[in-house]
Amino acid sequence: MLGSLPTFARLEAELSKLPGVGSKTAARLAFHLLRTSEQDVAALAEALLDMRRNVCFCQRCFHIAEADLCQICSNESRDAQRLCVVQEPQDLLAIERSRAYNGVYHVLHGALSPLDGIGPDDLKIEQLMQRLDSEPIEELILATNFTVEGEATALYLAHLCKERNLRVTRLAHGIPSGSDLEYIDAGTVQQAVDGRREL
Amino acid sequence: MLGSLPTFARLEAELSKLPGVGSKTAARLAFHLLRTSEQDVAALAEALLDMRRNVCFCQRCFHIAEADLCQICSNESRDAQRLCVVQEPQDLLAIERSRAYNGVYHVLHGALSPLDGIGPDDLKIEQLMQRLDSEPIEELILATNFTVEGEATALYLAHLCKERNLRVTRLAHGIPSGSDLEYIDAGTVQQAVDGRREL
Repeated sequence: MLGSLPTFARLEAELSKLPGVGSKTAARLAFHLLRTSEQDVAALAEALLDMRRNVCFCQRCFHIAEADLCQICSNESRDAQRLCVVQEPQDLLAIERSRAYNGVYHVLHGALSPLDGIGPDDLKIEQLMQRLDSEPIEELILATNFTVEGEATALYLAHLCKERNLRVTRLAHGIPSGSDLEYIDAGTVQQAVDGRREL
Repeated sequence: MLGSLPTFARLEAELSKLPGVGSKTAARLAFHLLRTSEQDVAALAEALLDMRRNVCFCQRCFHIAEADLCQICSNESRDAQRLCVVQEPQDLLAIERSRAYNGVYHVLHGALSPLDGIGPDDLKIEQLMQRLDSEPIEELILATNFTVEGEATALYLAHLCKERNLRVTRLAHGIPSGSDLEYIDAGTVQQAVDGRREL
């Protein structure tokens, strides 16, 4: 049907490569873009190219950056003695949004997952060890996800750092804010009881 | 947080203008594109620009086209005596997928909707009347949607064509294939009973 519209079909094909975009969504987006001004479509295309050209990863912590060092690594007011390890740049952004942390970060770009063939060499673990050797880090906060892979990665890193004179911590497990105990899974309640604190 | 990443933030802003894409989806897409090869991002950007530059609307039926006439209008094997009126190009594509129709089309680009300020002059109705004057059309099939606006548009067009020597039809109402009578709404069952056919 769209055989005579190669450029329309090609845009649909390109859009359907995006995560969460199937052929119906791709068609809907393409029809939307067809009604968008040429100027706005050009702005989107340019934003795509500019981002891919300019955004890279920080050479020290592997967060996204537009220079050799990211905004956090180049900010001298951050506490360089605490290092928080996360799986992805998105996780770092979530911690920044909490405004609970003023140290520096290290982004692993994944978690150990033997079933998917992801081992230590596929993550930025070697670079993390080099930072522990060369930087004045006193506390390593393991903030990988609370999934099987994230937990395994945290345990692996804790094991690697056992010999070092370093405080190694993990984000607290417990009941999330705003939630009813009634609806929380038993494993989380158990961890909240085990980790209870003096008031 | 992303203040130092103007190009990343700009891409997020551009993506979140797309329908159904909020700020979280925009961030997810932007992070995905960051991990996509520069070549693939360039292919998407080029597909966007090419589509917007090359795809236009058929001068006769207002379906999408890459030339003056769309694929259907330029196909001489189509039956030029039957004209099917639809709201959007997507509706035309749905009828084409059914392979039940070999006539030509007219795309209104909307439906009458006084509450949204959409009147006859905002649709391709004048152009439809010109086609009825100049083309050898014998049957006008009203295939606007079965919504309040679509029904109103169909009635309006039927009224406009009352004086013409023309068969005016509407797509059949009834039970959709593969469905249980038990779960069909009462209005549809009523229309299916009213429209029952001899076997």
